[in-house]
Amino acid sequence: MSTNKAAVIAVFGAGRIGRIHANNIRQSPAAEIRYIVDVSKPAAESLAAQCGARVGSVAEALQDNEVTAVVIATSTDTHAELVQSSARAGKAIFCEKPLDLDLATARASLAVVSASQVPLFLGFNRRHDPSFNKLKQEVLAGAVGDVEMVNITSRDPSPPPAEYVGRSGGLFRDMMIHDFDMGRWLLGEEPVQVFASGSVLVDPAIGKAGDVDTAVAMLKTASGKMCLINNTRRCSYGYDQRIEVFGSKGMVSAGNATATHVQWADSRGVHSEVALPFFLERYADAYRLQLEKFLGALAGKPADLPGGEDGLRALLIADAAQRSHDTGSPVML
Amino acid sequence: MSTNKAAVIAVFGAGRIGRIHANNIRQSPAAEIRYIVDVSKPAAESLAAQCGARVGSVAEALQDNEVTAVVIATSTDTHAELVQSSARAGKAIFCEKPLDLDLATARASLAVVSASQVPLFLGFNRRHDPSFNKLKQEVLAGAVGDVEMVNITSRDPSPPPAEYVGRSGGLFRDMMIHDFDMGRWLLGEEPVQVFASGSVLVDPAIGKAGDVDTAVAMLKTASGKMCLINNTRRCSYGYDQRIEVFGSKGMVSAGNATATHVQWADSRGVHSEVALPFFLERYADAYRLQLEKFLGALAGKPADLPGGEDGLRALLIADAAQRSHDTGSPVML
Amino acid sequence: MSTNKAAVIAVFGAGRIGRIHANNIRQSPAAEIRYIVDVSKPAAESLAAQCGARVGSVAEALQDNEVTAVVIATSTDTHAELVQSSARAGKAIFCEKPLDLDLATARASLAVVSASQVPLFLGFNRRHDPSFNKLKQEVLAGAVGDVEMVNITSRDPSPPPAEYVGRSGGLFRDMMIHDFDMGRWLLGEEPVQVFASGSVLVDPAIGKAGDVDTAVAMLKTASGKMCLINNTRRCSYGYDQRIEVFGSKGMVSAGNATATHVQWADSRGVHSEVALPFFLERYADAYRLQLEKFLGALAGKPADLPGGEDGLRALLIADAAQRSHDTGSPVML
Amino acid sequence: MSTNKAAVIAVFGAGRIGRIHANNIRQSPAAEIRYIVDVSKPAAESLAAQCGARVGSVAEALQDNEVTAVVIATSTDTHAELVQSSARAGKAIFCEKPLDLDLATARASLAVVSASQVPLFLGFNRRHDPSFNKLKQEVLAGAVGDVEMVNITSRDPSPPPAEYVGRSGGLFRDMMIHDFDMGRWLLGEEPVQVFASGSVLVDPAIGKAGDVDTAVAMLKTASGKMCLINNTRRCSYGYDQRIEVFGSKGMVSAGNATATHVQWADSRGVHSEVALPFFLERYADAYRLQLEKFLGALAGKPADLPGGEDGLRALLIADAAQRSHDTGSPVML
Repeated sequence: MSTNKAAVIAVFGAGRIGRIHANNIRQSPAAEIRYIVDVSKPAAESLAAQCGARVGSVAEALQDNEVTAVVIATSTDTHAELVQSSARAGKAIFCEKPLDLDLATARASLAVVSASQVPLFLGFNRRHDPSFNKLKQEVLAGAVGDVEMVNITSRDPSPPPAEYVGRSGGLFRDMMIHDFDMGRWLLGEEPVQVFASGSVLVDPAIGKAGDVDTAVAMLKTASGKMCLINNTRRCSYGYDQRIEVFGSKGMVSAGNATATHVQWADSRGVHSEVALPFFLERYADAYRLQLEKFLGALAGKPADLPGGEDGLRALLIADAAQRSHDTGSPVML
Repeated sequence: MSTNKAAVIAVFGAGRIGRIHANNIRQSPAAEIRYIVDVSKPAAESLAAQCGARVGSVAEALQDNEVTAVVIATSTDTHAELVQSSARAGKAIFCEKPLDLDLATARASLAVVSASQVPLFLGFNRRHDPSFNKLKQEVLAGAVGDVEMVNITSRDPSPPPAEYVGRSGGLFRDMMIHDFDMGRWLLGEEPVQVFASGSVLVDPAIGKAGDVDTAVAMLKTASGKMCLINNTRRCSYGYDQRIEVFGSKGMVSAGNATATHVQWADSRGVHSEVALPFFLERYADAYRLQLEKFLGALAGKPADLPGGEDGLRALLIADAAQRSHDTGSPVML
Repeated sequence: MSTNKAAVIAVFGAGRIGRIHANNIRQSPAAEIRYIVDVSKPAAESLAAQCGARVGSVAEALQDNEVTAVVIATSTDTHAELVQSSARAGKAIFCEKPLDLDLATARASLAVVSASQVPLFLGFNRRHDPSFNKLKQEVLAGAVGDVEMVNITSRDPSPPPAEYVGRSGGLFRDMMIHDFDMGRWLLGEEPVQVFASGSVLVDPAIGKAGDVDTAVAMLKTASGKMCLINNTRRCSYGYDQRIEVFGSKGMVSAGNATATHVQWADSRGVHSEVALPFFLERYADAYRLQLEKFLGALAGKPADLPGGEDGLRALLIADAAQRSHDTGSPVML
Repeated sequence: MSTNKAAVIAVFGAGRIGRIHANNIRQSPAAEIRYIVDVSKPAAESLAAQCGARVGSVAEALQDNEVTAVVIATSTDTHAELVQSSARAGKAIFCEKPLDLDLATARASLAVVSASQVPLFLGFNRRHDPSFNKLKQEVLAGAVGDVEMVNITSRDPSPPPAEYVGRSGGLFRDMMIHDFDMGRWLLGEEPVQVFASGSVLVDPAIGKAGDVDTAVAMLKTASGKMCLINNTRRCSYGYDQRIEVFGSKGMVSAGNATATHVQWADSRGVHSEVALPFFLERYADAYRLQLEKFLGALAGKPADLPGGEDGLRALLIADAAQRSHDTGSPVML
């Protein structure tokens, strides 16, 4: 079977995120999905039918010489192995975050990628959100002068099941890792110190599972720039995702997105809509643009995507934040 | 009794508006209230006590040579007589709008004022609202380029009693006259055509009293600039007072004011406060600044206040609007 | 060639709007485009290639029994003929507004449609804009109580070439017709009176072509509800599309859409983005949802789309508005 | 000299804050200023003239039996002595924050106050800001459910002279102390842990003076509620004073105030005004309402004002924050 599309792709994972990526690839004239791989055969079949792809195994996909790239959207504990085998098979890799919950394993995977000389990109989708991406462009363009402080509010609408929490690696590695990536990216300088602190205010079951559901963190760079992050697993008014970047000349900030631009005025007040419900809605554009950039990179365009090193740094900060929370003291990086 | 304050003032009318003016004069180091005059003796006495003034009659106040200026805040049907006698007594005059409900009477008053060579200013308070005044300054500074369209929304919170309506002169002369003044002022060109149309949608008793409670008007100038006005006597979310001035280079607009800057976010939406309840709250600053400008004019500063001619033009437009509504046809001015 | 998709469609017109519709159909699992028809062969070929369709003639498309529906997105002067021949061929019809610039011709087309018993839907895309559609749903749900006033601001970013204006039917039929449809729809009652007035403030060439570039209109229903519309062909801050629906219990309003939710704060102020540039961007969702509803209607779902009668009423109002502008008097419908 | 006003007051300090308080007292029918006391005779004389008061010494004022209350608005280093002597003289006391920069001295003053059984209130003016006060009322009314997180942004427009910094007690005691008070107040629970960290990013001279100009702090209560504070001494867009209170049911937040409600739309964007310039403008209402509550308390109304204990707690947190910044570790309270 031949193709005249630039990229031939195998998608690993036919769950929620895998389906988003597959559908974004399907819309592109620049790529074709050859394989859908999933441990659940019905999930794989259903997605494959939608995309005009075939159901296959990891081995089959990696041995197919026409496959140029893989998209890894499986469960976190399989990322490292899939990254390594895909790299050894010479495939370009797009992998959902995190590389792994264990830093050593993540480093080992990157070593394989490096040795294989394949490109690897990490799915820090928020960098591609049009509003957050604009913040970065404005910072680069000097709109705020020297960045001095970044404030990140990131609140999930409702807590995950406690059993998920148990294998998630904890709030800092599972949820705040996104904010650590945003913080690094927007500060434009590596944090050298992390202080983090968490509480169980939402669901005692999360506490029993050894995790927190509410947390804050402070990052500080060598030159003294600071980033404040606040997370919670429950937010009544939708998926609250806001960032402010403050500097010597001013501030750029990105607010929440809503389904419409309607306002209601009545005797009780003036009302507008809650934030979009969750990441599928809020980051729909981000997922699409991220995939587009990945396909662009495959086609030889300069890659505007976070890579393995970014994945590692975010994980490093998350580990430090967890340690800071555990010990009650700031941790130097 | 001597005074070293620049202006000595008699306030005619101790009702709602008279009290506002008296209290604003009281705060000023540049003026002193000598007389409070009102048909209700208790009202006059109470206000006089507050202001350190004496209760007097019109004649007494006008014959006192130390009185340099009068503030007329009595009922509309007494404006013409008070304006004329005050002018003849050589007092500077600040008079609440309208000069009179009858155009001929208004003109006659202005003739006396003119013959007496006293300054006369009209209480079109909205020109002094900080937001609306800023619109005018921005228009003068060229922020919108050539003005092309002015949109005015002016909605009272709740209808007046039908008995008031009967002697008010009707919505166009009583309520929309403010908007006609704002329209003229912001267009920067005299309207040559008025089309107006009203409905009874709020209170049938207002219809029985021969008036409307909901109305729109369109003003057009010789060069084709237009102004759209919409009024209603009932608005659930407060006193809705907004203006947009649109032109070749952009738009300036002024929104409603609220008591605080608080927002609420919950599962039903994001909420803020209704507009301030009515003119006493919304235009408190306007009344204060208006009086300050009047005192400034008395002290010889250039007068930035609408005068008799402005009162006449607004009345002329209101009459035309009433006629347009009555006949169903536009009226040329 | 057989298909298992519910609808087989011929798209007439491969210009800007035709391409939007074709691409929206292409994304749908419920429909297939069989023919692209356009007077420009390269335009037809390019779009056909994108959609996996073939280039054909009107006759060819209408004679193909597998074609169940047509989308008419050609120039206005061809709408009537295409509607009639498509109706006679038994095809379901989606036709861009207006049916025709001439009321009699429009009526004649509807007679043919009616005789042929095919469904006909009109492309009043704004009804499907998520924000404007929400206004309608809220009005139906009673959020504002009894509707009393509708205010529509509709401003194009920049004027069309004067030669376009000449054959456009004039601002009222070409541009404000959208607002007349929105006004009727949101008032929930037919207007019985129209007053309209226009000016040439933007481009003298438009005046020479016999048209206006700035205009207002007032619609009034039998029960006294009113709608104010303002249009201009030039707006510095993007495509300004806003609607307010005011009633006895409150107001619902829909504001402009922007590309991101970024704000800038600096020493000069707090800044946000201009409105989306023009209809392709602002109404992208509306076009998509409109087409989805058309395909839904073809599949037997209740049709939530304006039909021939709506097209006729909007045209009737536009004609009356033009006459009002020409004569300087209100026109009864 | 007799008076029939409820309170007779001596104002200590005729500087910027003293003048605000004196003018607010002057507007009140419930109080009279008897003495203005200041080390600068001209300052005292000018303010005394404005207020119809006499210039006096501390001793004179405290020995005057008709004086019922004092307002202390002198430099920080004199607060303790004035509080103690006023308490011993049996006067009710309103004292600007802080009680003293030294915790032991502050405690000693409170002991004297307590022994003297006079009321003492602290000038934490922000509690009386209408927007921030509304936040507190809403929290008490249950609008956010259980408070979980408070986020405070507090940014001065421009740094003070470095010489001021030297005797200010440092950013945490001089500036952030306001935010510590707000944090305690809005959390509704005492913080048990403070982590704070500062940087010199604005003015190296501040660093040379041993202080920081940019800082963050995290407060945590026994039940795990958290408060994040960020401060900077330079902000291009005015005096940025915002608070968010987040809880189990939602969020209440208070934004910045602006001089008008004007918006500008042009080809570069949609613009509104910067925040009010500094505390005199932003907190004008707060100062007025605070004084009104003090006079109310003197007249026997329930006191809704922070007292000595609040001053002590804020100072305690500020000290802990300074120690946390100095040592790099969180500090338990």
